[in-house]
Amino acid sequence: MNLSRPYLRQVLERRGYTFTFSTLASSVTWKRGGVSMVQGASRGIGLEFVRQLLEKNDKGYIVATCRNPSGATGLLKLKNEFPERLDIHPLDLTVESTMEDSANSIRDKYGSLNLLINASGVLSIPNVLHPETTLSKVQRSSLLLAYDINAVGPILVIKHMWPLLKAGGGSGTDKDFAIVANLSARVGSIGDNALGGWHSYRASKTALNQLTKSVSVEFARKKDPIICILLHPGTVDTDLSQPFQRNVPKDKLFTKEFSVQKLLSIMNNTKRSDNGKFFAWDGQEIPW
Amino acid sequence: MNLSRPYLRQVLERRGYTFTFSTLASSVTWKRGGVSMVQGASRGIGLEFVRQLLEKNDKGYIVATCRNPSGATGLLKLKNEFPERLDIHPLDLTVESTMEDSANSIRDKYGSLNLLINASGVLSIPNVLHPETTLSKVQRSSLLLAYDINAVGPILVIKHMWPLLKAGGGSGTDKDFAIVANLSARVGSIGDNALGGWHSYRASKTALNQLTKSVSVEFARKKDPIICILLHPGTVDTDLSQPFQRNVPKDKLFTKEFSVQKLLSIMNNTKRSDNGKFFAWDGQEIPW
Ligand SMILES: NC(=O)c1ccc[n+]([C@@H]2O[C@H](COP(=O)([O-])OP(=O)(O)OC[C@H]3O[C@@H](n4cnc5c(N)ncnc54)[C@H](OP(=O)(O)O)[C@@H]3O)[C@@H](O)[C@H]2O)c1
Ligand SMILES: NC(=O)c1ccc[n+]([C@@H]2O[C@H](COP(=O)([O-])OP(=O)(O)OC[C@H]3O[C@@H](n4cnc5c(N)ncnc54)[C@H](OP(=O)(O)O)[C@@H]3O)[C@@H](O)[C@H]2O)c1
Repeated sequence: MNLSRPYLRQVLERRGYTFTFSTLASSVTWKRGGVSMVQGASRGIGLEFVRQLLEKNDKGYIVATCRNPSGATGLLKLKNEFPERLDIHPLDLTVESTMEDSANSIRDKYGSLNLLINASGVLSIPNVLHPETTLSKVQRSSLLLAYDINAVGPILVIKHMWPLLKAGGGSGTDKDFAIVANLSARVGSIGDNALGGWHSYRASKTALNQLTKSVSVEFARKKDPIICILLHPGTVDTDLSQPFQRNVPKDKLFTKEFSVQKLLSIMNNTKRSDNGKFFAWDGQEIPW
Repeated sequence: MNLSRPYLRQVLERRGYTFTFSTLASSVTWKRGGVSMVQGASRGIGLEFVRQLLEKNDKGYIVATCRNPSGATGLLKLKNEFPERLDIHPLDLTVESTMEDSANSIRDKYGSLNLLINASGVLSIPNVLHPETTLSKVQRSSLLLAYDINAVGPILVIKHMWPLLKAGGGSGTDKDFAIVANLSARVGSIGDNALGGWHSYRASKTALNQLTKSVSVEFARKKDPIICILLHPGTVDTDLSQPFQRNVPKDKLFTKEFSVQKLLSIMNNTKRSDNGKFFAWDGQEIPW
């Protein structure tokens, strides 16, 4: 890692520090902001996180990742509006090298991270992945695909961002820790599973919960300044829920704006003792 | 499916019914026994289940499955001892056609199943799969491999045996339902996860718990006479635990004989209200 003085200065400036004259130590001025990464930001809840983070905090830098940046029109629009504070990186959850590349870019430009939101997820893919209505429709390929994208991918992203989150902690923000927030789903709860079905999706989110819990335990044991939480956004009007909205009462179908507002407020209020916990949009804990 | 009278008679005789003269309906004499399948029976806990089931119930038929029957010396010995009551089928958890073949053989010979024990599982494979001590060692390939064998495989086995279990229910036994028992592990509990680590194994067992719960819900909803339970065998002296026994107090390391005795007694005492529950060897429920 390049630790020359001009490099450090560049990094610190990007983190919201300002400098007078020459000495680094005496000239730093604290600013809120920090660097946030939203993984799975091309559309839906992820894109809305990027929008609200940019709009609500004019000192924060955002790294938004998606599989195909050139096709991510919503993100490109935001990049036009916030050219200085938004970077877009390609990241595919099934290609670990794209995570490494993204981590390297963040390290070179900012040196650290203060927030990582894993907002990606798949429930169905036309002609490929269908939420199962019965055991007889459960396929090996679907179980593995959902697991790969919903559980494996986000954990590998945390693995690669870990050094950056550790370096960042809460610096540049009003916290003394960085936050990792993984988007899970209430249907991932075993205790709450009264309906069955959706085997591939459910099991992948349950596994994500367990993996996140394991990671939160390790961060705590190592005294790394990072808190991990799991979030259920409610049923939110996005492409993901679209095919299943028919049976959702109107007042139970949230807009992206509302859900992300609620989830950001949970993150803003996160305490150390929340490490490893699973919260719904309204702040209620969800049983495992 | 062949439903001719000689065929039915053959099936019923194999299930422990006996016949006098000619009429089927009037001549059946109830016998305990039934047909049990032990999947993952080449060694360890699975092999011990086969042994105890054969020895404890001289009217029961056992189908034992493993990847490589010709190399399963323990099973072949038992086959020598109990040639009439033990069948050995090849079944590899990553090859769904082997499950179909096994289900077809069971259907042709017995027509139904009363007990399915998924006793297979992997924690480590030399040079291939290592229980992770830290997030930095977590690999996509390990996560997917453990999931495939520990979560996906057992669920696909249930899928293929479902019609046989439904046909069997508790007939030939003292219950009025068939039992599916999946070998899980306490480390699959999220609520109980205080140590972290073993990411691939833990997450795969957590997912198995969720999948089993989903299946139990569907069976109950359809009023199928099948109860699903999850079992933690304790820390048992087998190849699986061998590399990790150093830190286990002597009185906490069980013999296969002891653990399987305990698990069989849980199954013997299974009630309808146990459907979808997760029990340790001593009958205590484990939190999700
Ligand atoms: N919407 C709901 O009602 C609801 C309820 C409970 C939980 N959730 C969870 O909330 C999160 C966000 O869901 P959403 O409703 O916003 O879904 P969405 O609108 O369908 O968006 C899903 C996002 O995941 C990304 N993604 C899919 N596969 C990917 C891969 N291989 N690599 C990288 N990114 C990938 C998509 O990128 P592409 O554009 O490249 O496909 C897209 O940005 C998910 O974890 C979901 O499970 C949603
Ligand atoms: N022992 C413990 O302390 C302990 C603790 C908690 C939970 N458990 C669980 O208890 C169960 C039994 O464990 P164990 O101690 O008896 O383990 P083991 O002695 O290592 O035996 C594992 C069994 O799984 C089979 N298996 C592995 N991969 C397979 C595949 N692809 N297809 C079919 N079968 C496969 C093995 O067959 P091959 O001979 O062909 O490899 C073997 O029969 C597992 O689910 C384990 O996770 C064990």
